[in-house]
Amino acid sequence: MSDPGGVAADQLRAFVERIERLEEEKKVISDDIKDVYAEAKGNGFDVKILRKVISLRKKQPHEREEEEAVLDLYLQALGMAVQGNM
Amino acid sequence: MSDPGGVAADQLRAFVERIERLEEEKKVISDDIKDVYAEAKGNGFDVKILRKVISLRKKQPHEREEEEAVLDLYLQALGMAVQGNM
Amino acid sequence: MSDPGGVAADQLRAFVERIERLEEEKKVISDDIKDVYAEAKGNGFDVKILRKVISLRKKQPHEREEEEAVLDLYLQALGMAVQGNM
Amino acid sequence: MSDPGGVAADQLRAFVERIERLEEEKKVISDDIKDVYAEAKGNGFDVKILRKVISLRKKQPHEREEEEAVLDLYLQALGMAVQGNM
Repeated sequence: MSDPGGVAADQLRAFVERIERLEEEKKVISDDIKDVYAEAKGNGFDVKILRKVISLRKKQPHEREEEEAVLDLYLQALGMAVQGNM
Repeated sequence: MSDPGGVAADQLRAFVERIERLEEEKKVISDDIKDVYAEAKGNGFDVKILRKVISLRKKQPHEREEEEAVLDLYLQALGMAVQGNM
Repeated sequence: MSDPGGVAADQLRAFVERIERLEEEKKVISDDIKDVYAEAKGNGFDVKILRKVISLRKKQPHEREEEEAVLDLYLQALGMAVQGNM
Repeated sequence: MSDPGGVAADQLRAFVERIERLEEEKKVISDDIKDVYAEAKGNGFDVKILRKVISLRKKQPHEREEEEAVLDLYLQALGMAVQGNM
């Protein structure tokens, strides 16, 4: 009998195994991403800035510009503006 | 003038400083918590289990019992039950 | 010219695109995992306990038993033990 | 007897209570921080940019400038530079 205590054991096992398989795939990809960053670093790129670039690429240009403008405003108000800025 | 570009500089500075002060206090407390765990470890307690205990204490006993019962059921269905359990 | 300011633009672009592709794949898998949990929930399983099961399966049985034994000890010392326990 | 199963119950209880008290204090401060951000938002400030300012203030100006310069370089190489930048 596959249903001790009211749990459909086969179904539960199937769910658990599907999740574990997907988590394993996800881990492989996460490791791949780390490898690419490591390779970029080995080629002289700054990993921290590279992450920043990847995150900025998810934004629309106008969104990025607006955020930058507000940030500049705040930094100037606080006397923190630098020549180029950020 | 304290309002370049439409930002109330004094007000902005006040918010920033209040946040920074609170973050500093929070960091001190976080460090205190780490210290207590370290002290407990130094007295032979298992820090990981101690964290588990702290988290279990946030639950009502009946809530804890119910979760435990369901977990036991699932583990049995998967052939993972151990004598005492968990 | 592909090298403004000393950056190998083609190489940078290649790294960025590889990372973005992998992140996209990772997101798809993360969504798949969420879907399986949702499906399990739809079939009457408790998602929180399911996550607990998945995490327990990563441990060796003896490791699990040892942790459980220490937890029981601590809970008893604190007067928090329940019949079955956890 | 305060030592069932070899655990110094009084000592364990003392550690648990110290940790819980500190976690409670930490929670109060975390809530205070949220309140200040909410108040800033109520006064027209952009919370996301405010967080960015707080994080930038933790860096030395020269550190910030260097990171900004590298970021500009990468964005230009990718054709993503905007007038002001970031």
